[in-house]
Amino acid sequence: MADKNQKMVEAITPIDQDFAQWYTDICLKAELVDYSSVKGFTVLRPYGQAIWENIQKIFDGMIKESGHENVAMPMLIPESLLQKEKDHVEGFAPEVAWVTCGGSEELEEPMCIRPTSETLFCDHFSRVLHSWRQLPLLYNQWCSVVRWEKTTRPFLRTREFWWQEGHTIHETAEEARAETLAILDNYTELCEKYLCMPLVRGPKTESDKFAGAEDTYAIEAMMHDGKALQAGTSHYFGDGFSKAFDVTFTGRDNTLQHPFETSWGISTRLIGGIIMTHGDNEGLVLPPAVAPVQVVIIPVASHKPGVLDKAYELKARLSKFCRVKVDDSDNSPGWKFAEWEMRGVPLRLEIGPKDIEKDQCVLVRRDNREKSFTPLAELESAIPTLLDTVAKGIFDKAAGRMKERTYDCKTIEEINAIPEDKTGFVNAMWCGEEACEDAMREQTGYASQCIPFEQKQLSEVCPVCGKPATHMVMWGKAY
Amino acid sequence: MADKNQKMVEAITPIDQDFAQWYTDICLKAELVDYSSVKGFTVLRPYGQAIWENIQKIFDGMIKESGHENVAMPMLIPESLLQKEKDHVEGFAPEVAWVTCGGSEELEEPMCIRPTSETLFCDHFSRVLHSWRQLPLLYNQWCSVVRWEKTTRPFLRTREFWWQEGHTIHETAEEARAETLAILDNYTELCEKYLCMPLVRGPKTESDKFAGAEDTYAIEAMMHDGKALQAGTSHYFGDGFSKAFDVTFTGRDNTLQHPFETSWGISTRLIGGIIMTHGDNEGLVLPPAVAPVQVVIIPVASHKPGVLDKAYELKARLSKFCRVKVDDSDNSPGWKFAEWEMRGVPLRLEIGPKDIEKDQCVLVRRDNREKSFTPLAELESAIPTLLDTVAKGIFDKAAGRMKERTYDCKTIEEINAIPEDKTGFVNAMWCGEEACEDAMREQTGYASQCIPFEQKQLSEVCPVCGKPATHMVMWGKAY
Repeated sequence: MADKNQKMVEAITPIDQDFAQWYTDICLKAELVDYSSVKGFTVLRPYGQAIWENIQKIFDGMIKESGHENVAMPMLIPESLLQKEKDHVEGFAPEVAWVTCGGSEELEEPMCIRPTSETLFCDHFSRVLHSWRQLPLLYNQWCSVVRWEKTTRPFLRTREFWWQEGHTIHETAEEARAETLAILDNYTELCEKYLCMPLVRGPKTESDKFAGAEDTYAIEAMMHDGKALQAGTSHYFGDGFSKAFDVTFTGRDNTLQHPFETSWGISTRLIGGIIMTHGDNEGLVLPPAVAPVQVVIIPVASHKPGVLDKAYELKARLSKFCRVKVDDSDNSPGWKFAEWEMRGVPLRLEIGPKDIEKDQCVLVRRDNREKSFTPLAELESAIPTLLDTVAKGIFDKAAGRMKERTYDCKTIEEINAIPEDKTGFVNAMWCGEEACEDAMREQTGYASQCIPFEQKQLSEVCPVCGKPATHMVMWGKAY
Repeated sequence: MADKNQKMVEAITPIDQDFAQWYTDICLKAELVDYSSVKGFTVLRPYGQAIWENIQKIFDGMIKESGHENVAMPMLIPESLLQKEKDHVEGFAPEVAWVTCGGSEELEEPMCIRPTSETLFCDHFSRVLHSWRQLPLLYNQWCSVVRWEKTTRPFLRTREFWWQEGHTIHETAEEARAETLAILDNYTELCEKYLCMPLVRGPKTESDKFAGAEDTYAIEAMMHDGKALQAGTSHYFGDGFSKAFDVTFTGRDNTLQHPFETSWGISTRLIGGIIMTHGDNEGLVLPPAVAPVQVVIIPVASHKPGVLDKAYELKARLSKFCRVKVDDSDNSPGWKFAEWEMRGVPLRLEIGPKDIEKDQCVLVRRDNREKSFTPLAELESAIPTLLDTVAKGIFDKAAGRMKERTYDCKTIEEINAIPEDKTGFVNAMWCGEEACEDAMREQTGYASQCIPFEQKQLSEVCPVCGKPATHMVMWGKAY
């Protein structure tokens, strides 16, 4: 197949030359997504979908372990339902898609495609909740939602995206607050342990809260270019929604009460986060826990007798403890190396006639290309260990970048002295006034991301107005 | 808690008094669904969603085993895309929901919410397919779709339903035809082995095919009332769609060719099928393979020392090999028996002080209430065996009904002699003319369901027109 041997792995734009183009190249060339004929909508291709399913499996397991149950709500929201909670409708009405006709008839009342489902869950809760004995109700759904964004980018901002939205109601405010934070811990474990993405965590400022929430907590990750990605949020609603939707229950004291509510979500945006946290000039680098293929076996000199058989034999052995694939296509080994590096497979296993003679193979780490000759008899222990090492390697690299590019600043001048190509997280004090938040954005280009749980007293005063500071805020440039 | 002891399990309408009301009672009282404020849309509650997830897991495993991959397509279809295949648009346009506004702007082109996604898959295939080397592409997605039905019933016909839709393209017609039938076999295994629903299988007649398909194959199940439920369909499209959407590839001979296509789907309708196949006057009867709870442990005299501890200990042991729950609520044992029977749990395990003394428990089958005293030491073998026995028991019961209520008829008079309350499947010959199909429906109330693979030569002639018969058709009254 001479034509195939000439095929080159398509070039990716160098990461530090044009980060945005590098990102798009990876999305398309690693076959994670396809643009569609529907403007602003993308197709999740098998490789992207498989990553998402692995993320789903991990998080779904966590929340089921803690007693959460999945449900499925309608995808449409009647206009009157959306309007029941004032802040919520103001936040979402401008960006929803409206259904006005069903079949051949115009609808009496327009309905929007859910941009998020607080209203639908509350409507359901108001019908099924009766007694304190039923509480808490810990619900979640996996679905897609639609928000009519003006500019879109794969995974980061699309008119439709896939996510989970948890919605829970509780007897007391304390329990609901604890739920909000427990989920934030689940998100943290998912991101740090499984996606190898170090985080800064904390509440959002007043102006940045979710429409209708009393408190919004966020997990923020730093991308390769130093910009911030909000990777997930967890909201505490108090009883605002349950009052607006007349959700009530008979309490222990026999009085009618309103439950306290939370909601929380992570989305396919995490895949964008993985790309921009770990990727390099060779392409994608996938965290082993969510990589659709963890080990790719490349037979070398596969025309020689016994090589392909050995590759299949190894695949059968390895598939008992990891996700493994043999590339037995007629492309050259060099092409295959480049292709699977581009697709971010954590480990490559090369096996050729000489290796077989010596009962060994070559294992190559994707993250740093480190090679090791490994006896075939030891693969059952060597591969899991190496996968863990890759995971630790990419986490440490990301954590190192976050440390290097996090700046403690006392003044506006210090912030403005940060070079453009060294953009990062800026810790600076804040007086608590929205006006100073706005001024900071205007004067430095940095916007508040969250109020980190880990507070430091960098100075006594707000760098904008000079009044006493109440918090340290983490400022950044956000995706 | 005196008030709780007085609580009664809510009564269900007797199955033979009003089957439709019995069905609705089960849907609501077993907490499978909730009606929503969105007309014609339902909420899948945790118990219903858990059944669906178990079905998903089984079928998803089957198709991944045979090399299929999941993807996610946009939920909206621009009008122009829907119109590309003539038969398809005629079939679906009258029943779709139209989005006409995004954000505050009117859309230049209306888009419908997908009623099915052939058009989107073809659009995608046309962009990503280049060479015969890529074929087959074996894709599937799990999602919900919207069809603007006039009258709706939970699971059976709702404006939104959850399903999987498989879409594959192949190099040759033969391969695509083989795929269509291989999936029909997967559906058969799912229904007969896991859902314990015996089937009649075969192609649909010309007038009943899917909009745009060359062949549509169906699996048909008989419900408690003798009516037919189409439980799944698998379609062969030939190259009609790929021509309409200009999907091409360079073939082995270097010419540009159109691939051959299939699509196939099963939906949450299967849950309606489970209810109406196995349910009885006590409520739901769930096939063990998809029951969210396979064994419910009911502690008897649970205030006595050691009873609850023993129940938890058994739960820990059993959870290693089945889905198990302890009902440790403060309801009476009698109430719990009725409640979990109503919810269709296949096995009940009762454990009280006397049982503990004898190191035994009582196991009660949901399907026939058969009791057995079982030594605690034997539960690891006894429970899987009993679950299999329940599965076999409910399959055999359904198969018995299907046999009893399947009528081989030679004349219209024989068909009309079937008593209304013994409605069932009618095998009768057919000449192949649509006019006779219509006449049969008008004269008997029975409509063609499929042309069973297992053909019999009941007579030489069509009972309507008397002309030579070409096939035996299975006629029925459909949901």
